[in-house]
Amino acid sequence: MSGAFDAALGEGPEFDRIRRLAARWRERAHGLGDDCAFLEAGGETLAVSVDLAVEGVHFRREWLTPAEIGYRAAAAALSDLAAVAAEPMALLLSLGLPVGEDEATVQALADGVGDAAADAGAVIVGGDLSRADQLVVGCCVIGRAPSAVRRVGARPGDRLVVTGALGGPLTALTAWEAGEEPDAEARVRFARPAPRHVAARFLAAHRARAMIDLSDGLAGDVGHLLAASAVGAALWVERIPVLHAAASCAARLGEPPWRFAARSGEEYELLAALPSDVADAELAQAPVPVAVIGVVEAEPGVRASDAGRAVVLPPGYDHFRPA
Amino acid sequence: MSGAFDAALGEGPEFDRIRRLAARWRERAHGLGDDCAFLEAGGETLAVSVDLAVEGVHFRREWLTPAEIGYRAAAAALSDLAAVAAEPMALLLSLGLPVGEDEATVQALADGVGDAAADAGAVIVGGDLSRADQLVVGCCVIGRAPSAVRRVGARPGDRLVVTGALGGPLTALTAWEAGEEPDAEARVRFARPAPRHVAARFLAAHRARAMIDLSDGLAGDVGHLLAASAVGAALWVERIPVLHAAASCAARLGEPPWRFAARSGEEYELLAALPSDVADAELAQAPVPVAVIGVVEAEPGVRASDAGRAVVLPPGYDHFRPA
Repeated sequence: MSGAFDAALGEGPEFDRIRRLAARWRERAHGLGDDCAFLEAGGETLAVSVDLAVEGVHFRREWLTPAEIGYRAAAAALSDLAAVAAEPMALLLSLGLPVGEDEATVQALADGVGDAAADAGAVIVGGDLSRADQLVVGCCVIGRAPSAVRRVGARPGDRLVVTGALGGPLTALTAWEAGEEPDAEARVRFARPAPRHVAARFLAAHRARAMIDLSDGLAGDVGHLLAASAVGAALWVERIPVLHAAASCAARLGEPPWRFAARSGEEYELLAALPSDVADAELAQAPVPVAVIGVVEAEPGVRASDAGRAVVLPPGYDHFRPA
Repeated sequence: MSGAFDAALGEGPEFDRIRRLAARWRERAHGLGDDCAFLEAGGETLAVSVDLAVEGVHFRREWLTPAEIGYRAAAAALSDLAAVAAEPMALLLSLGLPVGEDEATVQALADGVGDAAADAGAVIVGGDLSRADQLVVGCCVIGRAPSAVRRVGARPGDRLVVTGALGGPLTALTAWEAGEEPDAEARVRFARPAPRHVAARFLAAHRARAMIDLSDGLAGDVGHLLAASAVGAALWVERIPVLHAAASCAARLGEPPWRFAARSGEEYELLAALPSDVADAELAQAPVPVAVIGVVEAEPGVRASDAGRAVVLPPGYDHFRPA
């Protein structure tokens, strides 16, 4: 959620709601609008974020193993640290458990959270347990942010880049919702997402001026990043990196692969604005593939084109929008 | 949740569960067992805690206004900072909201969280929203802890003291469960609890060696504090401060007032062990009444007596125990 949160927040009912809450809090709240909150302590800057994963909203037990539910919930929170190029330190876990929840399930879920924390270099330092009607996994993550990259800061002329390949989570969801088992490559993107901590530090070291993770999907988050910076962009959708399995799924749906990939949420890849003099040869050294998908422009709004032909971005991913 | 968390955690199914999780995490977790986790940043010590309030478990909408639900959830989390004598800095709010939740309810709940944060001197810096089947209010709180007081540290001969007067929350719950409107004094203890931040700093300044808040009730938390310190105590139950309304309620139930007060949970008062040379005259200067209710002894276990006659403490308050 920034001081100028009205600009930093994007569109959609969830963001409207946060905006209304922030307006309500007035001087009681500040810093809302980024992937993380920033705190100063002893001359160091810490980044903090909370993320809630709720059964039936973010995951279903028929789809994921308990270990995957835990891993995914923790990775989603840790990705907020990657989005600001912070180094993960600590995780606190809030678990809401139905009465009589099977002990093996709880232990496996804890293993998943522990694996995600260990993979990111974070230590579990605390937590809280409660009864709940459905499984609720809340993760609070804290990292050191000596050179935080925020949503605000993109300038006209900057190159817009995205890490990895998109569309995996939506491919997995599409299969599950059709009662099918997803393609393995797509499934792992949903079940065991890899927050881009190393790539985030690479991009920060290459003077990233603004950055965001794609938890709301590229179509949603490109708007959030640009709005925060009060700029717009030309977006070349034919350059959006699409996961192989996602392209196949899009073809079956009769949808352009770029469009399918752009509306896939909870990607946990990074979108960043880099100065125009960061060369392709430098980007080729990144720890994961980095694709240049557009250029920042002064005029607000996204002007998307497919090989020169104007196209319209789909809406972003929003948990509050009725399915 | 401490390195020596096996000792620091108390008894009951919730604590067994946390112990099993911590055993599972092994070297991936540390510091579990206190009211807060402690992080070092730039030479400063920060205390962090998360607390989950779930509809139907921690509150019912028939009992509390939305603003009270928000205030109580935030105050419960902030009380963890008081328990370690940390100075509140920041709060992050995770809200799980049923589909179609009334906007006025959400705004009032936000007001309650904002009021509790402001009362404690904390600023709301971030949050997350999700759909959920029931109202879920998760608060992550962060404070500065230059002179943290932990659960471990009580020594034989220390005076055991408690702040305020106990029994209010259980008095309110007893009335609501009987379909009655609670006494106003008791109701406010449940609906708008006042975390003891100023009292915590007073006790820390008076060399408190160990401290805990009474979220699990005196009967539960005295065991947690003593177990963490690997000591026991003599507890003089006739000295337990009982709220007037609670004494009346206990009388109606035919239960000794001290027993009723000791099993009342979510009190958010403080229990501390002070060196024996901290005099009554000094304690009389405290910002809230502080009662001496016992003395720490080397032998583990609690030896409770009522005016010299041995009595048995009731079990502590535990959300995992079926109602």
